[in-house]
Amino acid sequence: MDYRGIFEDAVDALRAEKRYRVFADLERIAGSFPRARYRDDADNAREITIWCSNDYLGMGQHEKVVRAMQEAAGTMGVGAGGTRNISGTNRPLVELERSLADLHRKEAALVFTSGFVSNEASISTIARLLPNCMIFSDQLNHASMIQGVRQSGMEKKIFRHNDVAHLRELLSQVDRKRPKLIVFESVYSMDGDIAPIKEICDLAEEFGALTYIDEVHAVGMYGPRGGGIAEREGLMDRIDVIEGTLAKGFGVMGGYIAANRSIIDAVRSYAPEFIFTTALPPALCAAARTSIEHLKGNGHERVMHQRQARLTKAILADAGLPVMETATHIVPLIVGDARAVKAASDMLLDKHNIYIQPINYPTVPRGTERLRITPTPLHTDEMIFELRHALVSVWTSLELPREKADAAITASKLTSGDLTLPNLGG
Amino acid sequence: MDYRGIFEDAVDALRAEKRYRVFADLERIAGSFPRARYRDDADNAREITIWCSNDYLGMGQHEKVVRAMQEAAGTMGVGAGGTRNISGTNRPLVELERSLADLHRKEAALVFTSGFVSNEASISTIARLLPNCMIFSDQLNHASMIQGVRQSGMEKKIFRHNDVAHLRELLSQVDRKRPKLIVFESVYSMDGDIAPIKEICDLAEEFGALTYIDEVHAVGMYGPRGGGIAEREGLMDRIDVIEGTLAKGFGVMGGYIAANRSIIDAVRSYAPEFIFTTALPPALCAAARTSIEHLKGNGHERVMHQRQARLTKAILADAGLPVMETATHIVPLIVGDARAVKAASDMLLDKHNIYIQPINYPTVPRGTERLRITPTPLHTDEMIFELRHALVSVWTSLELPREKADAAITASKLTSGDLTLPNLGG
Ligand SMILES: Cc1ncc(COP(=O)(O)O)c(C=O)c1O
Ligand SMILES: Cc1ncc(COP(=O)(O)O)c(C=O)c1O
Repeated sequence: MDYRGIFEDAVDALRAEKRYRVFADLERIAGSFPRARYRDDADNAREITIWCSNDYLGMGQHEKVVRAMQEAAGTMGVGAGGTRNISGTNRPLVELERSLADLHRKEAALVFTSGFVSNEASISTIARLLPNCMIFSDQLNHASMIQGVRQSGMEKKIFRHNDVAHLRELLSQVDRKRPKLIVFESVYSMDGDIAPIKEICDLAEEFGALTYIDEVHAVGMYGPRGGGIAEREGLMDRIDVIEGTLAKGFGVMGGYIAANRSIIDAVRSYAPEFIFTTALPPALCAAARTSIEHLKGNGHERVMHQRQARLTKAILADAGLPVMETATHIVPLIVGDARAVKAASDMLLDKHNIYIQPINYPTVPRGTERLRITPTPLHTDEMIFELRHALVSVWTSLELPREKADAAITASKLTSGDLTLPNLGG
Repeated sequence: MDYRGIFEDAVDALRAEKRYRVFADLERIAGSFPRARYRDDADNAREITIWCSNDYLGMGQHEKVVRAMQEAAGTMGVGAGGTRNISGTNRPLVELERSLADLHRKEAALVFTSGFVSNEASISTIARLLPNCMIFSDQLNHASMIQGVRQSGMEKKIFRHNDVAHLRELLSQVDRKRPKLIVFESVYSMDGDIAPIKEICDLAEEFGALTYIDEVHAVGMYGPRGGGIAEREGLMDRIDVIEGTLAKGFGVMGGYIAANRSIIDAVRSYAPEFIFTTALPPALCAAARTSIEHLKGNGHERVMHQRQARLTKAILADAGLPVMETATHIVPLIVGDARAVKAASDMLLDKHNIYIQPINYPTVPRGTERLRITPTPLHTDEMIFELRHALVSVWTSLELPREKADAAITASKLTSGDLTLPNLGG
């Protein structure tokens, strides 16, 4: 049996489609983020500017947050030492869960090792505990949510992206007495568009469904205390389960859900992904909590974040670049072809010391390959002008398309195959 | 629809079976491990000794390891800032993967957010990439491996625990031309017994199967450089995929596989659990690498670990306690009843300031509920004598059974239902 050949063929198939991924070796420089040291294949290092980080607010290098990690490591060590049940429930983790419950004004919260795991574990466990549950899932939901849905083994219906009329139609087809779970995101990270949360909550009420929202790309960044889009719109109390990450706006690592005590206790008690894994280290928990509490009490990062995102969009659009209109901090530039987007990314790095990763299928549908730019409060105005200069030069050299694209094109390019991405989701 | 009632009923079912879990709130004290500060429900704190930590070697508080985390946090910040592909591949992570490949003498290694995720992602992806793969899985495999097997959607055959004859029988029933994957552990963490690795490799060779071993409870602790049981027995090169955790012997957090380049590249390119999640923070990677390199070059922790484990077993057995004979550092005391093991654990904590979590179904089969004791190099001889005193007193007060148990009882208590634990695995 030529196992090696089989694996090599699988990878060669990606190469042939120009979507073989090579990871850039980066060394972040605390204190100078978004600057980082990039190492090329020959191990030569040089400084570059990162324009695609999901450390959206730069909290990963915030002085207070760094100090919290260092202090907790000094007093409590670097690991939790066990699963939650077997000696791994550490003091900073208990405090972190309280801080998260408070952030979302829920009775309780539960922390997982990542946002991915929180979605997989929570969606699958909640659906499995509801007899004969029917899941309603947005067409563009993240791989981790799709995985949770699949893993539940429950029946599902996929509604067209952010399409409330379609969701209503699907809900009305299902027996009123059957338990229902609607899973969706607030900010969709690739197009930067926002779900009609209120309308979805209205439908949930009308049809007696539970609601589960992924606020991974919103927590820390929206709402008066960083509670996300649902907080900004005064809707947190209408949503049953709010899921988030500690790794993006909050700058550290880990994931969580916040909900009423009965849901939290059920997931805590039944989800294998939660039970059978080592708990988050105290030093990570202390850092995450410091970040959350800072952002609860302080809008400065959020204001600067929105300012720099708006400025970036305006300046790039003004230069004739095909900026997708978004209502959020995410700035996609559609290229629409795997080979071209890779060439653009390479040229930005090699010629302009700017790092923006190409985004390919299956992260986005084929034909919508893009550069996805994420301005942070720490990108200066000067950096934005440098970015414009570099992009214009690359767009001209490579003769890339300049037509304006909007979020609708993404949904329109989706094929039914895209709905089951995680199957062989590479 | 009374959703709250449904979740509450699910949790009440656990309460009725006396396997509702309450997590102890512990604050590890770096420098004095295994001592920790325990907080009771009324938030009163007192010092206790942990006897059930999976920070098996105390590396979670090792000075060099703590310093590595603190320094990396200071220079690179507290988070990776993105998925591996989207700016999250950080310098210490690249170095960590090299260190792990070297540890296991493999061409490459791949790091995941946890050992749980590494098993789920790798087993499911490897099996899915092999057309019509048949998986052979040990009956006592960990929940994360079972999840990987299920998620692959491939056919599986379960072989009786560590039973090579049964494995041969099952292998011989399957078409020789069909791809095969054997998944098993080296050290089974609840009974502390060891797999017949050589015999399994012989069978794999004979029948043309790939081998996948989970060395989570062995890495750092066995072998001349801490490469695990396979290293100790000179078998690393006969195993295709070695999986481990950074959270137990190495004392930090994260998981990994080591294998040939083609397997690593395929999992890297196809596993959603790897692709769609934020990378491990540089500070964690730096700490883990320091721990691994320390243990590669230094046998002191391993020698002391084995000494304290042997001493603990001898002293407890001498006191007439029902210590299960094991070939490893794990010391199970079978109680055999959920209510009794909880009472024993509570009394140890309340009366003796000793923390040993009760282990219940579904972590172990019903009827084999136990205290699972894990001596570390940092448990002093005096602490061992204190433990004996406390256990004898609890065993007498509660009139617990004193018959000697061996690992066979665990396997004999398994029912077919136990093989699908993660379904509703609470
Ligand atoms: C919508 C969404 N949910 C969940 C996740 C996973 O979060 P984490 O990176 O913490 O695993 C991501 C991306 O990483 C995401 O984009
Ligand atoms: C055999 C085995 N594999 C994998 C894991 C998961 O490792 P981690 O704690 O790093 O998620 C565990 C326990 O936690 C385990 O016992």
